[in-house]
Amino acid sequence: MIESVILKNEKKIIFLVLDGLGDIPDRRFSGKTPLQAAKKPNIDQLSREYGIIGRMIPVEIGITPGSGPGHLSLFGYDASSYEIGRGVLEALGLDMELEDGDVAVRANFCTKKDGIVLDRRAGRLRSEETERICAMISERIREIDGVRIIIKPGKSHRFVVVFRGEGLSDKLTDGDPHKDGLPYVYPEPKDEGALFTAKIAKEFLFKAHEVISSETVANGILLRGFSMKPKIPPFQERYGMGACAIATFPMYRGISKILGMDVVGNPETYEQMVELLKLNFNKYQFFFLHVKETDIAGEDGDFEAKKEVIERVDKLVPEIWGLGPDVLVITGDHSTPCALRGHSWHPVPVLIVNRLGETDSLPFDERNCIVGSIGTIYGRNLINLALALSAKLDKYGA
Amino acid sequence: MIESVILKNEKKIIFLVLDGLGDIPDRRFSGKTPLQAAKKPNIDQLSREYGIIGRMIPVEIGITPGSGPGHLSLFGYDASSYEIGRGVLEALGLDMELEDGDVAVRANFCTKKDGIVLDRRAGRLRSEETERICAMISERIREIDGVRIIIKPGKSHRFVVVFRGEGLSDKLTDGDPHKDGLPYVYPEPKDEGALFTAKIAKEFLFKAHEVISSETVANGILLRGFSMKPKIPPFQERYGMGACAIATFPMYRGISKILGMDVVGNPETYEQMVELLKLNFNKYQFFFLHVKETDIAGEDGDFEAKKEVIERVDKLVPEIWGLGPDVLVITGDHSTPCALRGHSWHPVPVLIVNRLGETDSLPFDERNCIVGSIGTIYGRNLINLALALSAKLDKYGA
Repeated sequence: MIESVILKNEKKIIFLVLDGLGDIPDRRFSGKTPLQAAKKPNIDQLSREYGIIGRMIPVEIGITPGSGPGHLSLFGYDASSYEIGRGVLEALGLDMELEDGDVAVRANFCTKKDGIVLDRRAGRLRSEETERICAMISERIREIDGVRIIIKPGKSHRFVVVFRGEGLSDKLTDGDPHKDGLPYVYPEPKDEGALFTAKIAKEFLFKAHEVISSETVANGILLRGFSMKPKIPPFQERYGMGACAIATFPMYRGISKILGMDVVGNPETYEQMVELLKLNFNKYQFFFLHVKETDIAGEDGDFEAKKEVIERVDKLVPEIWGLGPDVLVITGDHSTPCALRGHSWHPVPVLIVNRLGETDSLPFDERNCIVGSIGTIYGRNLINLALALSAKLDKYGA
Repeated sequence: MIESVILKNEKKIIFLVLDGLGDIPDRRFSGKTPLQAAKKPNIDQLSREYGIIGRMIPVEIGITPGSGPGHLSLFGYDASSYEIGRGVLEALGLDMELEDGDVAVRANFCTKKDGIVLDRRAGRLRSEETERICAMISERIREIDGVRIIIKPGKSHRFVVVFRGEGLSDKLTDGDPHKDGLPYVYPEPKDEGALFTAKIAKEFLFKAHEVISSETVANGILLRGFSMKPKIPPFQERYGMGACAIATFPMYRGISKILGMDVVGNPETYEQMVELLKLNFNKYQFFFLHVKETDIAGEDGDFEAKKEVIERVDKLVPEIWGLGPDVLVITGDHSTPCALRGHSWHPVPVLIVNRLGETDSLPFDERNCIVGSIGTIYGRNLINLALALSAKLDKYGA
């Protein structure tokens, strides 16, 4: 429906996404959420004067989304129709270019003995070690049966393998027992079409294990999330907006690339992100700014840290709103409650700052969002409101 | 699902629809909506004593519906499955009877020179001029290749052409550049089946342009929204209720006819509408009363006028409820916020007065509706609640 009513104009929409923003009241902290506890005068003033608030269900009620579905929903896609596999996500996160037909897989260095995986993360191997060992493997294994093997180290024990060649499939089971102390397993084909790829993957593992057999820090490789680049209708065409993504973490730059957004810069601080936003403000109509640290704090169960990230972001908000966007959405891609130390299914608070004069006159937090005028909506519908509030949607039907 | 659980009984449901009722807080009026500002003691008393309240999304979050989709939803139809085209809607708005197979199209008088459309509305031609020129054309062009040409003038520069004959199609592009200063275009067939209709439409335009060639106020005709009466499952069969529509504006009588409701009378005042309701109260189970003026006030950005319409309607409510319906729904087909001077995507406040003893004990306005027990629902589901509250729905499943 949305595609049939898109109007193009120069109005600007900014999505300021605090990863894992949503939380639940925490008894250890007088029953508040980090968003309630944070001193965020700028966000609250904007919310009171120009904000409407509410909540969104990222994917489905009770369902905890990964980063892929979380962001797909945020950008208006039905997350159940498009899957971004883990391998692809990680590859893009390492700035690897994926071609159509490539199969990407997330890899861990591990330690194993007598066929049992001892430590799936090889003691969270130092990144330098991972780089060194990856270089060794790359050097020795460049191709198997006409399939190119492309390896790139990530942080700590993580790396990515991309298989590039004809006739590959991603229908493979994980080569990973998913728990320490269990037998090592090889990836297996899920269907006939994946027999060749399974053979290549196993041969890669045999050879790579050979290469690292004398290493002391890590002597095994786990592979999970075999996947190919999904075919997703490009964001810029779908909504008739030039879209600019700004993120410190590679994975979110990767997701943006899959959606066909332009990823600008390689910022390391929030200040650099705002700088990039300013530099590109006239060139695009849509901006995605991704802040990772709220999610990290949530995963660490660190209430104070999550609160402080929100406070740091609050200081940037006047400059962002000051650029003059028509719509500024502040939300998360999912909730990561400190008490749960992980992603959760909880609705995510949403603030839409707009220039229509419409406001709920309330500060922005989980509790107020329950009674906000946006109501509780599905994540995939959020962008409709941003588009409507920036006059980018025509009337539907006569 | 609904069709499978319909129970017939004599209980009465009234839908009192205030077109464009929903609004947003308006800063010029101490941050209230017209519904909040209006003195409506009768509605509020009913709401407090017998009312449950909530909000409905007419078609989809962020989507601004036209009158067609707005009313389809209100009557429980999925607006994305049935389209009432512009030509049909305008024809109905002028009280033209449409037969199966007719193709209706909205027409504008315009000015053009050397093949360029100068003014798509011919300076918003006076209605008298449009009537005069339409009469001339009707007089001279009655039929083309066995297809009857029926012309009816509307307001200002607007009129409607209905093509009546065998083998017609509505799969034609608009004969309208949609912007001043662009070349005049003729309607073209979208597929093979529309070749004949396109030939007729073009010939009509050639001849009509000939007829008006010496006119100074308008010398061209634009056609858009070729459409045929859609095939929609009749309301009375679908819900097992005799349905009676009462409306002052032709377009809404027209939509009711398309849904197979009985349209009674030709009322000009609210009092006449109530009179018709009384007269027909024993003959039907469902009543649709349409009040247009809230929408007009919204489109005019006239807060005071919108408030006053609500106050006038409030005075009628005791008499309507006094007739003894089991369910009285007061709502709109969409929002028309004064601040936006047009239809919008905003949720529409809903009040369901019922005799079940269920009440939210709250006055009826946009803000209370956010926290009402109905919640925020899709428009197409509203009728389910009215049916349920009048014992017209059986248990679903064993």
